[in-house]
Amino acid sequence: MNDVFDSLQALIGQPLADSPSPLGRWLGGVLRAAEPGSISMAYTVRAEMTNPAGVLHGGMIASMMDELIGMTVVATTGRYHASVNLAVDFLSSARVGDVVICTTRIVRQGRQIVHAEASLTTEGGKLIARATSNLLARDG
Amino acid sequence: MNDVFDSLQALIGQPLADSPSPLGRWLGGVLRAAEPGSISMAYTVRAEMTNPAGVLHGGMIASMMDELIGMTVVATTGRYHASVNLAVDFLSSARVGDVVICTTRIVRQGRQIVHAEASLTTEGGKLIARATSNLLARDG
Amino acid sequence: MNDVFDSLQALIGQPLADSPSPLGRWLGGVLRAAEPGSISMAYTVRAEMTNPAGVLHGGMIASMMDELIGMTVVATTGRYHASVNLAVDFLSSARVGDVVICTTRIVRQGRQIVHAEASLTTEGGKLIARATSNLLARDG
Amino acid sequence: MNDVFDSLQALIGQPLADSPSPLGRWLGGVLRAAEPGSISMAYTVRAEMTNPAGVLHGGMIASMMDELIGMTVVATTGRYHASVNLAVDFLSSARVGDVVICTTRIVRQGRQIVHAEASLTTEGGKLIARATSNLLARDG
Repeated sequence: MNDVFDSLQALIGQPLADSPSPLGRWLGGVLRAAEPGSISMAYTVRAEMTNPAGVLHGGMIASMMDELIGMTVVATTGRYHASVNLAVDFLSSARVGDVVICTTRIVRQGRQIVHAEASLTTEGGKLIARATSNLLARDG
Repeated sequence: MNDVFDSLQALIGQPLADSPSPLGRWLGGVLRAAEPGSISMAYTVRAEMTNPAGVLHGGMIASMMDELIGMTVVATTGRYHASVNLAVDFLSSARVGDVVICTTRIVRQGRQIVHAEASLTTEGGKLIARATSNLLARDG
Repeated sequence: MNDVFDSLQALIGQPLADSPSPLGRWLGGVLRAAEPGSISMAYTVRAEMTNPAGVLHGGMIASMMDELIGMTVVATTGRYHASVNLAVDFLSSARVGDVVICTTRIVRQGRQIVHAEASLTTEGGKLIARATSNLLARDG
Repeated sequence: MNDVFDSLQALIGQPLADSPSPLGRWLGGVLRAAEPGSISMAYTVRAEMTNPAGVLHGGMIASMMDELIGMTVVATTGRYHASVNLAVDFLSSARVGDVVICTTRIVRQGRQIVHAEASLTTEGGKLIARATSNLLARDG
């Protein structure tokens, strides 16, 4: 386990108020678990995160997943990566006030490309969405 | 052209302050163009929309695209649809203060599935991202 | 377990010479495992399945996955479904003569949309590719 | 226009019998058009390319698109690239004996990542499928 994960584990149960990600701070996740290759974060669905049907917006689902995948990859590899693509499948819905859990996993850590996945579930374990992403290491 | 698009066209150049989408209102887009099958919206990149690299967050790109595709589909078909999936490819970046233009197009309007795409460009026409999405008609 | 899976399990270890899928017969898979929601099939990489780099062609990877996902969905649900989309991520390569194992899993079985995934590995367990797919139930 | 495209244009109207791609030869496409950034190829649907529903198999659609995108990228850039991902959306169907036209376009040619798309249509212009792909330049 590297120093970054030592630091992250000290923050479990807390909102990441000092996240270097402005959108990450706005999303307001609370860290649940962190180890090299995987991070879990809990988000509470706020009204401004919803769509006209009153449910968690697909773009917010994508935001939670893209944010947490990026954090997992930089924390695990120590290198900044840019997302090449993000493919999200929407399976169920969440409503205002629901707590949703985003969990990431690095599937393959290549020298240039990292392939990762994320899931979003309710506290009860119902699957809301899944995503896969490819990220490219940025040099320098 | 249906009544919905008559109404939308009257709003060109204005922020959609009365959008039924809470996230849509938070994104704060200004309508640029609207016709059946295609809508364009301009968004100004705010600090809270960025990632740790200081550029427009991939999740915000996905949010703009998912929001505007959904609006285009409901306005064009008159039926609510749920996103089945959203696949985003990230091609370039935008910074705080940049105005980015999201433009949608319905590629195939089926009875059950609508297939649509979106692009995000700078004012100058540089391509920032593209997405495709499949949406399922919800009955009732 | 339904009758279809009883029949499939009797075929484990055999090539599916009577598959109703012409491309499935051409791919020449040998059934490894079958239960509701998941099927595994072994394919031997032939020269005509390769690309100019001499490795298993991405299109063949997609073919094995799309074929086996379709078989899993019809066997599990008893209803014919059409693929809405297939998203494949390529992680490693296989060469002529290699045996590759495709394994599917239905992630969510909805009334209209089934969401499924597939992986392709070598005999030794090295991950070659992954895919996700959404399929739409066809009535009558 | 580079030498590769001079050579390709001399082959318009012919099957690419000497393609360095074994699967490409098996698919049996006839070149329709070729310019830097875009190639069109006509394929005739054979029985062994179909699924149990008697229509062109999704995996064959993916094969045509992945094959032709790869050819377009190597011919345009002069460098071999590996597919990182391929996302296919299925919009309509084709039957045995139909001639289908696959057309590619490089959307963004980066130093490391090329982003490309492909469409598959009938001779009459009906859209059968679309795909996007990201490819990574391989050094050496």
